[in-house]
Amino acid sequence: MKKLNRNQRVIGITKILTDSPNKVINLNVFTEKFNAAKSSISEDLMIVREVLNSLNMGTIETIAGAAGGVKYRCNISGEEKLEFVDELCTLLKDKERVIPGNFIYMTDIMYNPEIVRKAGLVLASTFSNLDVDYVVTVETKGIPLAYEVAKMLGVQLVIVRRDTKVTEGTTVSINYVSGSSKRIQTMSLAKKAINKGSKCIFIDDFMKAGGTALGIFNLLKEFESELLGIGVLIDNMETKNKLVEHYISLAELNGIDENGSVNISPSERIK
Amino acid sequence: MKKLNRNQRVIGITKILTDSPNKVINLNVFTEKFNAAKSSISEDLMIVREVLNSLNMGTIETIAGAAGGVKYRCNISGEEKLEFVDELCTLLKDKERVIPGNFIYMTDIMYNPEIVRKAGLVLASTFSNLDVDYVVTVETKGIPLAYEVAKMLGVQLVIVRRDTKVTEGTTVSINYVSGSSKRIQTMSLAKKAINKGSKCIFIDDFMKAGGTALGIFNLLKEFESELLGIGVLIDNMETKNKLVEHYISLAELNGIDENGSVNISPSERIK
Repeated sequence: MKKLNRNQRVIGITKILTDSPNKVINLNVFTEKFNAAKSSISEDLMIVREVLNSLNMGTIETIAGAAGGVKYRCNISGEEKLEFVDELCTLLKDKERVIPGNFIYMTDIMYNPEIVRKAGLVLASTFSNLDVDYVVTVETKGIPLAYEVAKMLGVQLVIVRRDTKVTEGTTVSINYVSGSSKRIQTMSLAKKAINKGSKCIFIDDFMKAGGTALGIFNLLKEFESELLGIGVLIDNMETKNKLVEHYISLAELNGIDENGSVNISPSERIK
Repeated sequence: MKKLNRNQRVIGITKILTDSPNKVINLNVFTEKFNAAKSSISEDLMIVREVLNSLNMGTIETIAGAAGGVKYRCNISGEEKLEFVDELCTLLKDKERVIPGNFIYMTDIMYNPEIVRKAGLVLASTFSNLDVDYVVTVETKGIPLAYEVAKMLGVQLVIVRRDTKVTEGTTVSINYVSGSSKRIQTMSLAKKAINKGSKCIFIDDFMKAGGTALGIFNLLKEFESELLGIGVLIDNMETKNKLVEHYISLAELNGIDENGSVNISPSERIK
């Protein structure tokens, strides 16, 4: 291909790096693709790093050694984070969302890629220093969010199921007590899904008492693996006694008031 | 913020555009963020467009009028597409994947963000001319892939469930006959999930006879909506009589041979 100038190379480099967060990309990928000297690419990378940093769009780290290269790590500014959570709360406050049984319809939010991308960015940037091996979730509503977090951290997603499937091979199932309804529930995970001795975080859409999160903690013990963090989109504050202590949430739900509007506000845990 | 030069602006512009595929972004977003004149931003955009085009990394379209702006549309070169599908087939050929019942364990592939992103890119670029309103899938294994396609097309994801949930409000349920096992199954969707008169595509991980796809076609009729396309990762060719005619697949599975290796090859439908 024809030689590109600096303006052109930094565009390609930005696209390639941000497409694969947390993955080490060898400099040869760029020198070959853009037909440029290593020294030019190094200078290009300095410019990309500086700009992404100054715009709070992420950082670029250099990894030394033979298997070295550069990798992109996502980021969001504190200001943008709060702005996003405010917008999210405004969306959720809509009276139209209250459905019989005083539940809040939020499926459209959990499946909206624009919202999920930003929520995933907030959670991933919170956990990006943990060096995890897997992002774990339970089917179904939290899957897109957990997928975004896994993608931004550059790791594998693991989905724990409510039932067992023939296409999963040998599975490990545990029973757990849902913290709010006190019902016994089951969750299963394929034995092939997680390597022994792994570090995981758990991502979900909603937390009541935290029974599911505690269940995941116990399930991971069966895989001799550790739960390093928990992140949820919405924390139901009406359930006071939580079964887990350390977790982050984006918004806190305090029930529905006498006018039928949803009482929700940005979480104290991300400020 | 301090004024950025062209090198620096094109990096920020590339990041913002590619973060939100198929969403119209007004030029004011860029002039304000980068403290630059509209004429400079227009020139920046021409450079970004040219480079992304020449690297087969997508296109940038200009939308005229008051609500106008620019939008990014994803793309992948024919060469990269075939290379990716070849790699996918190599991964799936592994004998270790064959589990009791002669099923192929592919959960790790469906939940690997790097693979899902590329598979999603192939499917999204195939359907990007259709102008769809929703990407529909059925829980669970195809959700990350369908989410990627929805994100790349800039539309809402819809997940049809096997059961009904109290948190979904009123739902529409249909019964359908699985094409291969001939068992009657149920699928449900919240009434709020799809607006009347919408255009949809269906994305899934695996197709046997296409009973699920036909079920989705019928379910969408209940929402007075249309199914414009079907895309799956793997098509099981051992089931000859398909219940749907028009669909695309990335790979074709032809069973497991006498040595216990998986017989899988790039699909004729994407070449």
